Amino acid sequence: MTETEYNAIENCMLSHMQDSAHDKNHVYRVLNAAIDISNHENAVDSDVLIAACLLHDIGREKQFADLENICHAKVGGDMAYDFLTARGWEEQKAQHVKECIVAHRFRGGNAPQSLEAKILFDADKLDACGAIGVARSLIYSGQVDQPLYVIDENNNIITDGGGAEVSSFFQEYNYKLKKVYDSFHTTRAKEIANIRQEAAVDFYNALFCEISENYKHGQVTNEFS
Amino acid sequence: MTETEYNAIENCMLSHMQDSAHDKNHVYRVLNAAIDISNHENAVDSDVLIAACLLHDIGREKQFADLENICHAKVGGDMAYDFLTARGWEEQKAQHVKECIVAHRFRGGNAPQSLEAKILFDADKLDACGAIGVARSLIYSGQVDQPLYVIDENNNIITDGGGAEVSSFFQEYNYKLKKVYDSFHTTRAKEIANIRQEAAVDFYNALFCEISENYKHGQVTNEFS
Repeated sequence: MTETEYNAIENCMLSHMQDSAHDKNHVYRVLNAAIDISNHENAVDSDVLIAACLLHDIGREKQFADLENICHAKVGGDMAYDFLTARGWEEQKAQHVKECIVAHRFRGGNAPQSLEAKILFDADKLDACGAIGVARSLIYSGQVDQPLYVIDENNNIITDGGGAEVSSFFQEYNYKLKKVYDSFHTTRAKEIANIRQEAAVDFYNALFCEISENYKHGQVTNEFS
Repeated sequence: MTETEYNAIENCMLSHMQDSAHDKNHVYRVLNAAIDISNHENAVDSDVLIAACLLHDIGREKQFADLENICHAKVGGDMAYDFLTARGWEEQKAQHVKECIVAHRFRGGNAPQSLEAKILFDADKLDACGAIGVARSLIYSGQVDQPLYVIDENNNIITDGGGAEVSSFFQEYNYKLKKVYDSFHTTRAKEIANIRQEAAVDFYNALFCEISENYKHGQVTNEFS
């Protein structure tokens, strides 16, 4: 890819990135990870991969505006296709970028098929691993005003879905972050994910322990006269 | 304290707590930690301590509305004094609660003097230690749309204040969270803080390492034709 073409696609991305957790730095980390992974694979179409990485989340604005009906991967794929063909990309290449973007959010039947789609998928999921995955999830909690935890009537942290009125970081971790390590397609992504996993597990366990100990040692009911 | 009095003060607190990072669960953790610490001290006035813990952040709403001019500790102390005297508390006791609340945010000349003020100060600072301190700081980043990190032109994460246009979690950690472990007055709080410190340090180092490695391995400039 030429630097001019990169800058044009990057500017398209920047015009659609506003919030912190899915901000431009997430996009650059996904691009960085994808390049790292592609250096361990053969015959990667780097034009398709770079464009797909830069544009993979440009549909998020529209999804935020209509969470019920819009999938950012699907609408982002269409937006990327229109943008690239308008810039003179061959239909086949633009279609390939679109398929990568549609498949980066795995929901049922649209698993990534091409090598480039698998690399984007893995690079995006790597950003949900380790300390960075935990940090992004906590920032997201702040953005949507989600609590760190919900406790039951016995002062135990609710870690599954049962009984909690609102979702929390602890539930997000157990539903999503904990499971992401089994979802990779490429050897290099699995390797990076394995290195990162311990930091996430250690942090979660420390957080659980600190909060549980705090509630255990501070029973206010003993103070009532 | 009677359960009726506790419930009245708790309801006053709940009516002023809205956001996630300084939400009601922070207040309960501070109360829990304060009770834990007070079990290792002699002759604590538990009525003053419980009221001060429950009401210590009720001034935050007003501070958010006018960050330049209002200190939540000062205005919260006044609000607590008015609330408690209106409920029939002796002036001296209400004044003691006020002094605890004013001194919980250490800015220059108002260091905590009484044992109860020191316990509230320590219990509040404990919530900035360890995994819980990191988690609260990240949630706060999301709330105020602060980025996780800012990088310089050489793709290095900026960890001090120099050169960064906006503050970030990395700067917050190095300015505030890293230094909180030296600020305690009571033996029990120091003990808890020491136990928690490793989790925060490990997480910060893992996060720094993950992001640095990501940028190091993904130089897009090599991909330009």
